[in-house]
Amino acid sequence: MRQAETRDAFEARLRAIGAERYHDKHPFHALLHLGGCTQDQVRAWVLNRYCYQEAIPRKDAAFISRVEDPALRRAWRSRIEDHDGSAEHEGGIARWLRLAEAVGLDPDYVASKRGALPATRFAVEAYVRFVREMPLLDAVASSLTELFAPKIHKDRIAGLLAHYDFANEASLAYFQRRLSEAPRDVAFGLAFVLDHADTLEKQDAAAAALTFKTDVLWAQLDALHSAYVEPGRVPPGAWQPGEGMLA
Amino acid sequence: MRQAETRDAFEARLRAIGAERYHDKHPFHALLHLGGCTQDQVRAWVLNRYCYQEAIPRKDAAFISRVEDPALRRAWRSRIEDHDGSAEHEGGIARWLRLAEAVGLDPDYVASKRGALPATRFAVEAYVRFVREMPLLDAVASSLTELFAPKIHKDRIAGLLAHYDFANEASLAYFQRRLSEAPRDVAFGLAFVLDHADTLEKQDAAAAALTFKTDVLWAQLDALHSAYVEPGRVPPGAWQPGEGMLA
Repeated sequence: MRQAETRDAFEARLRAIGAERYHDKHPFHALLHLGGCTQDQVRAWVLNRYCYQEAIPRKDAAFISRVEDPALRRAWRSRIEDHDGSAEHEGGIARWLRLAEAVGLDPDYVASKRGALPATRFAVEAYVRFVREMPLLDAVASSLTELFAPKIHKDRIAGLLAHYDFANEASLAYFQRRLSEAPRDVAFGLAFVLDHADTLEKQDAAAAALTFKTDVLWAQLDALHSAYVEPGRVPPGAWQPGEGMLA
Repeated sequence: MRQAETRDAFEARLRAIGAERYHDKHPFHALLHLGGCTQDQVRAWVLNRYCYQEAIPRKDAAFISRVEDPALRRAWRSRIEDHDGSAEHEGGIARWLRLAEAVGLDPDYVASKRGALPATRFAVEAYVRFVREMPLLDAVASSLTELFAPKIHKDRIAGLLAHYDFANEASLAYFQRRLSEAPRDVAFGLAFVLDHADTLEKQDAAAAALTFKTDVLWAQLDALHSAYVEPGRVPPGAWQPGEGMLA
């Protein structure tokens, strides 16, 4: 039987997955962050990415629904509130819809998800179902793309502020807020995975789960790029520029 | 309350969904059928489409698992055998793997699905889960893309025979066989949907299910086109030309 990797080697293996496959390497992000997107390409990104944002609290609720340890449930619960908000605090989804408004989209249209690419929905729902169906360790491991998120959020804030008129503190509040939320979440998730992946088989499964999640993110950008950048073929029924705009 | 459409009007509505959105309109099919694909593009199509073929009997088993009427279960069961085969008869999946061999791919590699595009898997599994989770009427309606399949299979047989060296009666046996299987299945499915969609609400749901299924098919070709035709960017981990070839 092969031995489990050491904690450090296993963490390095997880980080290497991000270095190779995280969607910061996708050319759409270079285009977006360097100011190369048209307004409509930014809109297409905002309205498709909404589907992902909206699914995250469902994913986290699916996770909590399977956990029998009240302490773990309690530790995970803030993720739902971060996105859905509370009576006192706006959540990430509301912040995302302010970004949608800032780029000229009707937030109700965006929230309806009517114009989203089918491929976006397939990828996002694959993630929700993964967390609903797979072992808890794999479910936590799939959240570890957050390890790689702070850099992309910083690049995005700087890039959008530098290149786009719609960008300001209010419209980019989502990303600013994630800079403090994500590290807290991922520190917990990483410790959980390093603690619980105590055989090579579990380490392999956790690495596969993180790889799966990078696929979920990459596939969304590929579909976006294909529909709205190159070759620029919008699938039947998906958003066309001009639809869903603020009155 | 709005009235249900007549049987004829509702059938026409379902057929119009195919006329607008079925994947015979996707440019990849024109490329394939007119001889414009490279060998590697054909291989990419064969190995990705395998994922869809392999999922069909799981989808049909998921359907049968939810049906309480033995007669309906019995009527549906041949679909599993058509694809998986029996002791006496080769099934559609085995025929598909012969096509894979004919284009030079190792059938074990294809069957492993290791090189398939993540977007293919997300779309295909969305279909399996739709049939597992949605009302039975919607599940049956989602199978009605078979209404539009005979024409594409005939075009494909003619186009592949005309343009590609690998094409012959043996390698294209899958498509030839579907020309007799699909009409029988879809006659049953269409009658079921027309009989059971007896309110406008159910008709709308059945039309939405068929639309969803056209999205599942279209998204697969979009991902294929994006990875291997234009812009030709293969996602991390997916098949690269040269991999998985017959020794």
